[in-house]
Amino acid sequence: MLLLNKFQNIVLIGAGNVATHIGKALINAGNKILQVYSRTNESANILATKLNAENTTNLSQLINHADLYVLSVSDDVLPDILKELKIENKLIVHTSGFLSMDILKQSSANYGVFYPLQTFSKSRKVDMKTVPLCIEANSPENLEKLKSLAGQISADVREVNSEQRKKLHLAAVFACNFPNFMYTIADRLLGDSNIDFNILKPLIKETAEKVQDLKPAEAQTGPAVRGDENIMLAHLEMLKDYPAYKKLYQIISEEIKPATSK
Amino acid sequence: MLLLNKFQNIVLIGAGNVATHIGKALINAGNKILQVYSRTNESANILATKLNAENTTNLSQLINHADLYVLSVSDDVLPDILKELKIENKLIVHTSGFLSMDILKQSSANYGVFYPLQTFSKSRKVDMKTVPLCIEANSPENLEKLKSLAGQISADVREVNSEQRKKLHLAAVFACNFPNFMYTIADRLLGDSNIDFNILKPLIKETAEKVQDLKPAEAQTGPAVRGDENIMLAHLEMLKDYPAYKKLYQIISEEIKPATSK
Repeated sequence: MLLLNKFQNIVLIGAGNVATHIGKALINAGNKILQVYSRTNESANILATKLNAENTTNLSQLINHADLYVLSVSDDVLPDILKELKIENKLIVHTSGFLSMDILKQSSANYGVFYPLQTFSKSRKVDMKTVPLCIEANSPENLEKLKSLAGQISADVREVNSEQRKKLHLAAVFACNFPNFMYTIADRLLGDSNIDFNILKPLIKETAEKVQDLKPAEAQTGPAVRGDENIMLAHLEMLKDYPAYKKLYQIISEEIKPATSK
Repeated sequence: MLLLNKFQNIVLIGAGNVATHIGKALINAGNKILQVYSRTNESANILATKLNAENTTNLSQLINHADLYVLSVSDDVLPDILKELKIENKLIVHTSGFLSMDILKQSSANYGVFYPLQTFSKSRKVDMKTVPLCIEANSPENLEKLKSLAGQISADVREVNSEQRKKLHLAAVFACNFPNFMYTIADRLLGDSNIDFNILKPLIKETAEKVQDLKPAEAQTGPAVRGDENIMLAHLEMLKDYPAYKKLYQIISEEIKPATSK
């Protein structure tokens, strides 16, 4: 029987959506969060209370005997935090899709990445078992440790290097952030006509379900892929008071159109 | 007890995805499809066999004693078909999100619309019970008939007039067709780096699930809504070989950005 390494003692640096979801998942898997750091007292306190941990707003007061430091702050803040971090040679990981692993080299001889490929909002539960966890480490030993930890909370653990992860992160913007903004546009268009957004919910759900089975290019429907110019012209006319949405409609439709109707 | 009108005898004009899904749902609800028309012998035959109906490729040979004629062809073909259609005063409906109800006036004194707000592909089953059916009719009697029929196959029947339906149809392009194309872009970007699209599937699913509960504007995540200029610049650089995707990235991000970071 293989004994998994349990990281009994973890320090969480950050208290945002990703930190919250990862922190909860780590605890549910039997680990202990010793301390939560956040810039503001309020958010440090809220998350620490949830995770039954100490809290601090002072990086110089980080507990120094933890087994793992999970750095989960926004990408533009992370470099500043690293400058102040003194954790000697303990294992430290960040959870960013964008930043390279090597940015952590300055803080410890043992480092890695623990990137959950999912969209997290504070008010929503996410089943971490289904979230792809992309891991990377600076040594085979640290990779094994992170694999073991990731395996405790997700059924989908993947080794992904920094270059691939950066590409994944860009693809995720197109697969998640931009579709969500398309929903926002739909919501605004309906709102201006006093139609409730809820009528679109089954459609949105099925659109995402379809590409679980079909390739997205095969799942494409709508006027552009049919090359129906009349409808596209009428839609552009309907968008005349929304110049940015009209431009998006034009560019996306042009890209969707089959080569035969261009 | 209210007795529902069962339309025992239905003629289906069209054999595409929408016709196929509606035809099956009508049969499952206890109705009978007498005949399927399609321009090509092959598609008329395939669908007619599935629905246990006769088939024809000749509009002048349409059965003239049906209770309902369902016209489910693409919007650019529909006007030509109407010119040839002689069905006297039987009830006729189209299934288009875009075309007005009145286009049917030329073919019968009894007409309406039966628009399922969903994306249909041949290879996928859809649970019609959850599909919003938007109905409209030229008289209260016909509206009652269509309500009753729609109620047999969906739990979400809504009265929607032609103007609202047109707006819904435009919103559906943003809620379905464009998100699907965003998935296609993600697939292409990953494909060029030999990363399998399947890693994005949980993310795509959760993105659609989130807006079942949250307003899309509240569900927005990613670099643009955080105003993270460094990441956006890096992403644009990564897209330098994809000019159209780069342009989309710029416009959509600019629209997502909170007013404070513009």
